Parts: sequence; C-alpha cells; structure tokens
Amino acid sequence: MTKIIKFGGSSLANGSQYQKVIDIINADNARQIIVVSAPGKRFDDDIKVTDLLIKYANQTIQNQATDAVLQTIIERYQSIADHFQVPAAAFQVIPDTLAKLPTQTYPNDEYLMAAFKAHGEKLNAELMALVLNQLGIKSRFVDPKEAGITVSDEPNSATVLPETYQNLGHFGYGDEKLIFPGFFGVTKDGNIATFARGGSDITGSIVARGLNIPMYENFTDVSAIYAANPKIIKNPIPIKKMTYREMRELSYAGFSVFNDEAIIPAIEGKVTINVRNTNDPEAPGTLIVPEGGFQSEHQITGVASSGHFSALYLHRYLLNKEVGFTLKLLNIFYKYDISYEHMPSGIDDLTVIFDNRQLTPEKMKAVGREIHDTLHPDKLNWITDYAILMVVGEGMVNMTDGLSKSIDPLAEDGIKVNMINQGASQISIMIGTRKADANRAVKDIYNQFFNQQED
Amino acid sequence: MTKIIKFGGSSLANGSQYQKVIDIINADNARQIIVVSAPGKRFDDDIKVTDLLIKYANQTIQNQATDAVLQTIIERYQSIADHFQVPAAAFQVIPDTLAKLPTQTYPNDEYLMAAFKAHGEKLNAELMALVLNQLGIKSRFVDPKEAGITVSDEPNSATVLPETYQNLGHFGYGDEKLIFPGFFGVTKDGNIATFARGGSDITGSIVARGLNIPMYENFTDVSAIYAANPKIIKNPIPIKKMTYREMRELSYAGFSVFNDEAIIPAIEGKVTINVRNTNDPEAPGTLIVPEGGFQSEHQITGVASSGHFSALYLHRYLLNKEVGFTLKLLNIFYKYDISYEHMPSGIDDLTVIFDNRQLTPEKMKAVGREIHDTLHPDKLNWITDYAILMVVGEGMVNMTDGLSKSIDPLAEDGIKVNMINQGASQISIMIGTRKADANRAVKDIYNQFFNQQED
Repeated sequence: MTKIIKFGGSSLANGSQYQKVIDIINADNARQIIVVSAPGKRFDDDIKVTDLLIKYANQTIQNQATDAVLQTIIERYQSIADHFQVPAAAFQVIPDTLAKLPTQTYPNDEYLMAAFKAHGEKLNAELMALVLNQLGIKSRFVDPKEAGITVSDEPNSATVLPETYQNLGHFGYGDEKLIFPGFFGVTKDGNIATFARGGSDITGSIVARGLNIPMYENFTDVSAIYAANPKIIKNPIPIKKMTYREMRELSYAGFSVFNDEAIIPAIEGKVTINVRNTNDPEAPGTLIVPEGGFQSEHQITGVASSGHFSALYLHRYLLNKEVGFTLKLLNIFYKYDISYEHMPSGIDDLTVIFDNRQLTPEKMKAVGREIHDTLHPDKLNWITDYAILMVVGEGMVNMTDGLSKSIDPLAEDGIKVNMINQGASQISIMIGTRKADANRAVKDIYNQFFNQQED
Repeated sequence: MTKIIKFGGSSLANGSQYQKVIDIINADNARQIIVVSAPGKRFDDDIKVTDLLIKYANQTIQNQATDAVLQTIIERYQSIADHFQVPAAAFQVIPDTLAKLPTQTYPNDEYLMAAFKAHGEKLNAELMALVLNQLGIKSRFVDPKEAGITVSDEPNSATVLPETYQNLGHFGYGDEKLIFPGFFGVTKDGNIATFARGGSDITGSIVARGLNIPMYENFTDVSAIYAANPKIIKNPIPIKKMTYREMRELSYAGFSVFNDEAIIPAIEGKVTINVRNTNDPEAPGTLIVPEGGFQSEHQITGVASSGHFSALYLHRYLLNKEVGFTLKLLNIFYKYDISYEHMPSGIDDLTVIFDNRQLTPEKMKAVGREIHDTLHPDKLNWITDYAILMVVGEGMVNMTDGLSKSIDPLAEDGIKVNMINQGASQISIMIGTRKADANRAVKDIYNQFFNQQED
C-alpha cells in the first residue's frame, strides 16, 4: 500500500537533516510519494528560505540590489547538494532558476511574491530528486503544473479547485519516488499561487486524496501531538489516535501541529494522517482518523488554551425581545471588517469574543462608539485579557460527568470561569478565563483527567 | 411614605375578593394609589371580563348580535356592586358606558378592539371608586387621559412615551385614594391603546415612577416568588428578596409573576416591587430590588425551566473562518420572520436555539432548505424537544463553584447536558437538556442548593 510522506522545513534544513529524511524514506518501501517544504531553520536565529525569498521578492519589487540575498539562498541549497556530492552541472539548475526569477513576467506584484515564495519548495523538491537519484534511488520531481494542482486566483492565499482531483486521477506513475513541492499550485491562467503559510500540509492532503492514498505520514519535529502543551505540563501523555474534529477543536486553542485547511481534502478522501517526528522516526506518532467506531482509552483526548482573545460585554433590558439586535451588531462588525469568534448570550446580555489579532485600540473604540450610538446598551465593557480553554474528546459524547469533571478542579483551585459554552457538537467544552489563570486551569484539568495525584 | 398598590384580576373577580382588597387597602394608610385589573376568573372554567370584552368587540366588528355577551359583562360588575350595595343610580354609568361602546368612532378595528378591552380595567376602577366611597373611604377614579399616560400608536401593544412622566409630575393629588385602571393609556391623538396582555403591572410601574413612589405592592394570587416551580418541587422556599435582573433571568425560563416590560419603569424610578398575595395578605411576599449592596442568604436565588424550545445544529469544517457566515444565517431567519434566542458556537459548529412558539413545521423545513442551499453545512439537525434551565443568583458573581455545584448533580443523576452557557453577566447559568429530563434536572439542582438531603 503506497504511502504519502511529507517533510516540514526543519526536517530539510541542512544535509544532516536531509540524511534523516532519506533514511526514513528508505525504511519503508511504501513511502513513494514525497512532499517537501522549503529548507527551514538550522538553529534558533536562522532565517527560513521562504523568508529569504520574501526578502528577495520585495527587493526585486523595489528595484533594490538583490545580490546578497540571492547568494544566501543559493548557499542554503548548495550546502545540501555538497553534503551528498550532487554534481555541479546537475545542481546548476537551482542557481539559474533563482537568478532568473526577477526576469520572468507576472500579472502583478502579488503574483511575483507568490512565485518567489513557491520556489523555496519547488527547488527543494528538485534538489531532493537530484539527491535521491545521486544515491541510486529512482526518483523524479513532479511540478504541480504537470500534476494539475489547480488553484483559485488568490496569489498568496489560494484554495484548491475541484478539477485538481480529476487531474491527479489521470496522472499515473510507475515505481519511482515522486517528489512534490508543497505549498503551491497553478491558476487556470498558468500562474503560480501559494496556499496560506504552512501550506505544504495542504499539498500532502490534496495529493493523498487525488491519488487515493489512505495513509499520509506528516513528519515534523515533534514525536506526537500531546494531550496538553509540554510548556505547561511536564511530560504530557502523547495522543495515540484522535479524530479530525478533535484535532480541529484543539488546534483552535493553540495546538498547531497540522494545518487546519489541510484537513478538508483528508476528510473527503478518508485519509488517515500520521503525525511523526523526523528526529525520532521510531516513535509511532499520532494518528488522525475519521470519526466513528473509535474510542479513546481516556475520557478526554486533550486540553488546550489560547490567550489571544478579547470579550465585549453588552447589557440591555429586554435585549432578547428586540428582533434584529444581533443583525445590527454583526453589521457593525462587518463594517469594521472584524469577525467574531463566539457570542454567548444571556437573557439581557450578550458577550462577543474576538481574536485579539484583528483588533486595534482604535477599532475597539470606534466599534464601541458605534454600538453605543446604534444599540444604546445600558452597559458596554471590553475585557482584553481573555483566554479560551478547550477540553476535547470524542468520549465526552457518552459521558455525563465531562462537564463537572472539567469544572470542579477549577472551582477547587479558585479559578473564576467567565464563560462556559458547550454546543451540540458534544465533543468539547469551551471555557473562558482571565489570561493569567489559563495555564493553571490547563494544569488542573489535565491532572483531573490524566493524573490522579496533584502536581 | 405613600405606596402604590396593584391588584390582579383574580383579586377582583367578585364581591368577596373585592372585600379582601378593601381590607388590604384599609390595613395600611400609606396604600393610597391603587391600580386595578379587570375582573378575572372566579373559578377554573370562568371567563375573564377581558375575554368577554374581546368577544363583544369581535361581534361588533362582524355586525353580530351582542346582547348576550353585553349582559354577561354587565352582570359581572353588577354582582360586585350588589355585594357592597352601591346605589343603582351610581352604578348606571357602567352599563351605559358598555352599551355605548359600539356607537363610538374608532380609527380602525384595532383601535376598537383596544378600547373595548381597556374598559375591563376602566370600569373596574370606576366601580372600585364607587365601592370605596360607598364604604366611606374618600376615593376618586383617575382616567389615564387625565393623568397623561401617553402611549405609542400601537393600539394593542403600545409602549409608554416619555412625556407620561412629565405629565404625572404635574398631576398633583390630595389625601384621597386614587384608583387607576391598569393596562392602557391614550395616544397623542386621544385614542385608547393597551399594553401587551398582563399590562396592568406596567401601569403600576409607570405611575410609581411618575409620582416618585418608591414602594410598589403588586398583589396577585401567590404568596411569594418561589425558588423553584411548586409544581416540580414540593413546598419550595419563598424568595424573600431578589434583584430585577435575577427576576428577568428566572422569568425567561417560565417564572411569570411579574410582567417583563413593567420592570423598565421600575428600574428607572428605583422602585422596589413587593409581590404579595391578596388571599394571604400577612405573608411578606417577595421584594424585587435594584442590584447592588444586597446578598442573598442562599448561594443561588432560584432555578427555573421551560420546555418550549427547539435547537438547530449546524456543522461545517472551517465554519469559523468564513466571515459573514452568521450574518447570512441571521438574514435567513429575518426573511422568515423568526428571531433566535441563543447561538452557542463551537469551532466548526453552531447551535441556534429558538422559541418553539414562533416555529411551524413548514417554516422549519423552509429555513432548513434555505440554509442548506446558501451555507452548505455538512450537517443540519433540528432538535425539537429542547428545554432550557436557568440557575440564577447574584451570589454567583463571587462564587467559583456555582457551575460545578449546578452540573454535578445532573452528572450524578445521568442527565445529559446538551448545552451550557454562562456569559459575562455571571449571575446565571443556562443549561440545555432534553425536555423529558428538565423537571428532574430542576429537582436535582434545587436539592443541591436548598436541601442537603435527597428528595
């Protein structure tokens, strides 16, 4: 059974990381379809090749000198090629392509930016094919254009178009390794357009679905997805298996192992995703599977928290009798181009929770003023240090004490719950606290479900 | 200190009830401003005078014979007058006014309906003044027109206009009892318009605010507002004191002792409302007071449930990334003229809770189809047997275990919580369950907070 295998940037940052990847590929013959990111950081202060390419693009747009950045990019690939003694003549395609990027024509600067960025992956895939062939492993680079990965006309935040799957169905391949660059596709007009950042995961899912490959190994730099953030909980237990929707709920509150948008093709194709570690290839990692027919050994799967939220509290008597109140409110948000996250309502009050990253003090002031003038609330307060915890588990569907088990330890610890929200999905509980309490709350809930002893 | 005192329909249903009212008036000289409803039911199968007047109005509109219903209405007032030996000549104003109602001119049938209905209160106030004077208690009937109770041009669901308070400020009165009819006011054009049904409470609040009377005794047929529905809990404890907003939250889930719209003038005027029982006048009843500076002796004030809800569950991957999703949804509801109650959201799902009373199977089907076609959810389910519980108490603001204490007994009892919602108001928790579990859930929560033993 063929597997698709994707490597992130840190797994491909230099020659020795490349060697680990090649060992992983060689360890299992089923690993035939390989998706690569651009070379990532080799050390903490290093610059990712993608960021170098953005710099290169900006200097090109502004007609500045590009020699230094171009040289730095070439050296990143050169050092990997040297590690494997790739012949200079074969390697020459990489500096040539990079040097020619500014001379190509693009519909506009945004497409220029997209094309420059995409070459981080594209050239890394070409280099991977060169290296593998150099090592005697029959391989070929697959251009997304050749494979028919067709995307929308949004140069730097494209989405995949349905014809992609038909094209991949026609594609056909033999027993050679296929090396796909992640992160980008080609518009109907033939221009390169990239997915949102982190989009190599998306390419892996698209190719898995298009080629009907049921197992997608996603190699990163963590050995598993853990039941809680290791920065908060010492040695949290790894999650062996979770459903897509569990992952979605946890990733909402800060778990960022797998790109959200990459899930949809995986769901559509019923692809199992196996998150694994390039630096610990023996670890089984975490399986992400379609829901149904699977029961975790623990009552919950994980607990996550994220502190980048603000809440707007509105109170007005008989608010719930005014038809169209929320509609007016949403129209105000729409006017200021902010979208809300959640909107728990009481009888005469409403809390609107926002992602801080789209708010500015000016916007908050303007929105508050407009709400005040339009909707005449009795009270209007902003709470800017808001955190959201997600307690997640498929097991909660059939559990009547999930709520109380989540809440009790917070009560015992004197942590004030500002908001609690459980909708009909039934696989998660959302808890709002002050940011200062969030890590303690995660600890309390983790210990409740995974450790019987206090920490 | 002058008090305002209002009597509901059952307190004025016949001569012996009238006598109780007069005894209550006589028991406290401060009870000078009296607001009356129309005579209510004397026994279970009886018809309220207001309903007789609606019949009279409809027969008039349809040019049908009205003799029988007119006679029935007159007899209701006559029997009270006879009980107190009101002289026939003095009483004659009541049959005369009733008989002349069809000959008056009205802007349209809706104003005709409003005027007919309003006479239930108007004539009862005139009769009360006759009876009190007959008994030697100096009294006078006050027409809302004379007092300046000015309302909007919505004949059967009017709202009070601000000039009312200026007019009442000018009104002036001596030491006689003033008898106001509840339920209606007069438009700027001089037409009678009524409040929504139960609107005599509103008149009481308006007059209290306008005449700056800080104590409003509202006499009904219950001795207190109880911490839970006596049909569910045997002998629940009476609530001695609660805030306006506690009452609002409890009345949302079915506590219906005091009209919601009557609260706003009371809040504006900082009027304390004392809900009392005409049939048990010694009982202190329940005080409804402005919030602040008051702490209940119990952790919660009450628990209520209401089973007339339906929930619509929607799921779609990355739903929360689509700006304007909720806006589109609300526009669909707006188009079908239904307003939602609450909208708890998860990460990829949204539950919308509706009051059943505005849904029909046809509307549900049409709304479901339009949501399906417009928003393409992966899942769309209706849950039609939905109940909402409210656990309410000012004390919860400073209590960290309110949530767990509310939820734990449900978990122990095996009751599935479908939704839980606590917003920033912090004085209530809203719990969604199946209708079949609601009464048991109320019992569990009541026992948790008010009885330590099981029931």
